[in-house]
Amino acid sequence: MSRFDSLQCPIPIADYPIVLLAHGGGGRLMHELIERIFRAAFHNPLLDTQHDGALLPLDGERLAFTTDSFVVHPHRFPGGDIGTLAVYGTVNDLLMCGARPRYLSLGFILEEGLPMETLWQVVCSMRDAAERAQVQIVTGDTKVVDRGKGDGIFINSAAIGTVAPGLQIGPTSVRPGDVAILSGDVGRHGMAVMAVREGLEFESAIESDCAPLTAPVMALLEGGVEVHCLRDLTRGGLASALIEIAMARQLTVQIEERAIPVDGEVRAACEILGLDPLYVANEGRFVAFVAAQDAARALALLQRQPLAANAAIIGEVTAEPQGLVTMRSVIGVNRILSLLSGEQLPRIC
Amino acid sequence: MSRFDSLQCPIPIADYPIVLLAHGGGGRLMHELIERIFRAAFHNPLLDTQHDGALLPLDGERLAFTTDSFVVHPHRFPGGDIGTLAVYGTVNDLLMCGARPRYLSLGFILEEGLPMETLWQVVCSMRDAAERAQVQIVTGDTKVVDRGKGDGIFINSAAIGTVAPGLQIGPTSVRPGDVAILSGDVGRHGMAVMAVREGLEFESAIESDCAPLTAPVMALLEGGVEVHCLRDLTRGGLASALIEIAMARQLTVQIEERAIPVDGEVRAACEILGLDPLYVANEGRFVAFVAAQDAARALALLQRQPLAANAAIIGEVTAEPQGLVTMRSVIGVNRILSLLSGEQLPRIC
Repeated sequence: MSRFDSLQCPIPIADYPIVLLAHGGGGRLMHELIERIFRAAFHNPLLDTQHDGALLPLDGERLAFTTDSFVVHPHRFPGGDIGTLAVYGTVNDLLMCGARPRYLSLGFILEEGLPMETLWQVVCSMRDAAERAQVQIVTGDTKVVDRGKGDGIFINSAAIGTVAPGLQIGPTSVRPGDVAILSGDVGRHGMAVMAVREGLEFESAIESDCAPLTAPVMALLEGGVEVHCLRDLTRGGLASALIEIAMARQLTVQIEERAIPVDGEVRAACEILGLDPLYVANEGRFVAFVAAQDAARALALLQRQPLAANAAIIGEVTAEPQGLVTMRSVIGVNRILSLLSGEQLPRIC
Repeated sequence: MSRFDSLQCPIPIADYPIVLLAHGGGGRLMHELIERIFRAAFHNPLLDTQHDGALLPLDGERLAFTTDSFVVHPHRFPGGDIGTLAVYGTVNDLLMCGARPRYLSLGFILEEGLPMETLWQVVCSMRDAAERAQVQIVTGDTKVVDRGKGDGIFINSAAIGTVAPGLQIGPTSVRPGDVAILSGDVGRHGMAVMAVREGLEFESAIESDCAPLTAPVMALLEGGVEVHCLRDLTRGGLASALIEIAMARQLTVQIEERAIPVDGEVRAACEILGLDPLYVANEGRFVAFVAAQDAARALALLQRQPLAANAAIIGEVTAEPQGLVTMRSVIGVNRILSLLSGEQLPRIC
């Protein structure tokens, strides 16, 4: 982009004069926002890798660096809270770069009137989560905004990790023939939050899958599997993650619907709310693209990990240069998965 | 703190059952919040250095890592906007660790309904600020919250810098005899924002001092000055920064009121609003504690820098172990500066 364009806002004002909730939803509008506003202004080779974090050359050593803000509503849900998410979400983004998480920063934006007890509970969740994820919280910041200008508690976390020599993990390393492995059932996190928000009652509460992916990812990397790309299935769910990778590489990802595990109660909740579980956010699931010759071994390594015991091969990469994800349904019909314009569920993380 | 204490909130509920604006103000309540909630839960040797950022040992190389969130209201003020602050504020925190800023992450929390044009202007400010501060924006994240649950735009930035071998800059390195040098006049940023917020009119608008401190700090470090501590004078202003250092080291800092430059219109605005300029936030000023034998040279090096042309020696460190800041007023009376309970000005950064 030329410097001289900068006076004019690159998102046509006629189309979107204001920010919509959908601009934060992980779908088409969010892509547009990132491409036309953030990348247009900030583009540089490191940012342009379009991955969950940045790999930073620093005098020989490679670091990974990532950031994420958390605005989930409600703050607490079965299986976790905003503090758990703020640790695991950011740690998982580092792992998706093939990095071992090391250091975490925390930025709190508190709304005047937040019960001190709530803050303490969130902070305790974060301490336990950091311990479980084997990451050190090393610096932080707190701001307080006036009543009605926030929503209790927002948390940003940024993290630094180190990357073993030789690893090149990211969408650009995906190639035809790669096998896609999913680490477990999908849709739990989004449905756990929505069930609380909407007051849905099931026989047993749907638990969020939120968890640190350190152990299963390290099992792959230390097991010597040729891993080409890792992606956690957060906002936009499995479908959006696969579509982003297919688009980035201009290849086709072909998946099998029957291979994708979805819990019965998650499916029921999705049906009540008219949602597709493939687009629902997860906070402890990822997809790994691995070289075909390593697929069986990768699957076995994952299935030995408690957090990936239900890992499954869900598809493969083909050379068709359409940048599409096609899914063969349980009745054998192929359909193309498309990026939603927003997200089905706002404020899920 | 023992693990077994963790079920009970360590800020007495009877005193502060809810978060107050003052808990974000850089004063006594914020100290309590950090000590009793955040440090109680997260304490570790790196966090316990109580500096603006963390120095991270990483296989020989030392990194500095810091984070800051920005919630300034209004978003734009004479001399800058929330985007400028989000770059300079975080870069300056790294410099206060003696680090050269390298990489920046950005986390946006946008409120539904924010004009897209406003976002674009802020993003352009950040691009220009990053260029001026010589830092690369390498990763980011965006969340959108529903109307009435935010305030247009909040920004978190985190940054990584590298630290030259041998440097030990921080409150713990301050010692008796050290000379305190202030890099310029104080109170501009806070008064620039307040003048807009309160509709105060002066002959000329008060301009924020917000600026990247890269050049003056590097002039000291590369000039071989024995720098013991650097502190930028943000929330809580000059007075709070000095008090924090005196408390951390349990030494006394003695300063001269007449040596502290305050612009005439800043002083006038402070008088109208009943504020003390020593407690007003700055975004481009710092205090350096240097070894006495290097003080004159340090002052000369700073005065050669446009951003520190009015640098002045304002006091020295004495061995009295009270952890106090004492100021001799223009009429020769000594008084003790105390930490305010909140900040005079909420949402100034």
